[in-house]
Amino acid sequence: MKKSPRPEIPRKAVYRLSIYLRCLLRLKDNGLPTIASEALARAAGVKSTQLRKDLAYFGTFGTRGLGYDVEQLAEMISEVLGTSRLQPVVLVGVGNLGAALLAYQGFGPEGFEVVAAFDAEPQKARTRTTFPRILPMPELPRVIRERGVRMAILTVPVTVAQEVANQLVEAGIVGVLNFAPIVLQVPEEVTVNSVNLAIELENLSYFIQE
Amino acid sequence: MKKSPRPEIPRKAVYRLSIYLRCLLRLKDNGLPTIASEALARAAGVKSTQLRKDLAYFGTFGTRGLGYDVEQLAEMISEVLGTSRLQPVVLVGVGNLGAALLAYQGFGPEGFEVVAAFDAEPQKARTRTTFPRILPMPELPRVIRERGVRMAILTVPVTVAQEVANQLVEAGIVGVLNFAPIVLQVPEEVTVNSVNLAIELENLSYFIQE
Repeated sequence: MKKSPRPEIPRKAVYRLSIYLRCLLRLKDNGLPTIASEALARAAGVKSTQLRKDLAYFGTFGTRGLGYDVEQLAEMISEVLGTSRLQPVVLVGVGNLGAALLAYQGFGPEGFEVVAAFDAEPQKARTRTTFPRILPMPELPRVIRERGVRMAILTVPVTVAQEVANQLVEAGIVGVLNFAPIVLQVPEEVTVNSVNLAIELENLSYFIQE
Repeated sequence: MKKSPRPEIPRKAVYRLSIYLRCLLRLKDNGLPTIASEALARAAGVKSTQLRKDLAYFGTFGTRGLGYDVEQLAEMISEVLGTSRLQPVVLVGVGNLGAALLAYQGFGPEGFEVVAAFDAEPQKARTRTTFPRILPMPELPRVIRERGVRMAILTVPVTVAQEVANQLVEAGIVGVLNFAPIVLQVPEEVTVNSVNLAIELENLSYFIQE
C-alpha cells in the first residue's frame, strides 16, 4: 500500500469515502477478508470507475484478481477521514433540535464524542436530554482549549447563529456543523457544513413538483 | 411582478431560496414592509449579486429605490418551493434517529406534516416518540395513495435502505430525504436528498486536519 500526502479532493469524493468506509465495516463484521472493486462499488451505490478514481487520490490499493483487503482499506479511509481516533465535539444551543441530537446515540459509534453542550440559558435548556450537564456560554473557550476540541455542532436560533459562530472561531473551532438556515461568514481556514432538515425537505419539494 | 415558468436552476440556488424565505419571514414578523436587496443579501449571508441572480430565475422583483415587498417576495418563493400549502410526508424506519425526528417539532412550522410513520416491526419501534401510531409496512401504499403523499423521510438501517426505497418509489413517492449512508438507485424522475449527520461530521473531520 502506497500512501500519498493529503491531496485536494472534491467534497463529494470525501462524502463517498464515508460511504465506502461504512460498507467495508459491514463486510468486516461479516468476516469477509477481501472484496472486488465491482462488489464494493455496488454495495456503495456507485460505479466501479468512480470508486477506483476516488481511492486513487490516496494511493494504490487492491491486488489484481483478489480485490481490496477489507480491513486495510477501512483503516486507510478512517485515517484519511481523521476518525481513527475519537474526535471530541461540542454542541452549542440546546433547544428542541439540540436536545434531540444530544439524545441521538448515533455519533459515538461513528467516532465522535460530544464532550460538552452549551446554552445561553443552561437552566432553561430543554430537559428532554439525558446529557450530563449543559454549560453556560462563558465556559466555551476553556472547555474547547482543555479538551482540544476542533469541531462544533451549532444548533442555536438563526438570529444569533453568526454571533455564536464568531465566538466558536475565536475559541479555536475550525469545523462547524451548522443547523441554522443562514450562510455563515467564517475565515477561510474554517470549514462549515450546513444541514437543515426543513430546508432539505423544501429543496425536495421544489424538485418533485409536477 | 412577472413570473416565468419553472426554470432549470442549480440545486444550490434552490437551497438559497429557502434561506431568503426564512429571512423574509423574520422581517415580516418584525413588521417590515420592504427591504433593499443589499440588506436581504446581508441577512442571508450572500452577496447581493448572488441574491439578484437567484431571484432573476423566477421573474422581475423589487422596485428601484424601494427594494422588495417583503410579503410578496416571501409568497412568491414559498409558491416556487411548493410549501405554500402543508405538504404531507411519511417517515419510514422508527429506530433511534427516526424517533428523534418524529419528536422534533421543527417540520410543521416549515410547511411539512408527517402524516404517518412506518416500521417493519411497529410494535418494537422506539417508544420515546409521542407520535400517535406506527404502522406496519404493508399499509404504506394505501396511506401514500389516500393522503396523496409524494415525499418520504427514510430512516431505516442501511442494509434495507435500497429495498425500502424501491417500495417507496413503487408506491408513488417522488422525493426521498435519505438518512442511510448509501447512494440510493432510483428512477430519473425521483429526487433523493441525502443527510447523514455522522457523515457530515466525518466530512468536516477531513477538512479540519492540520
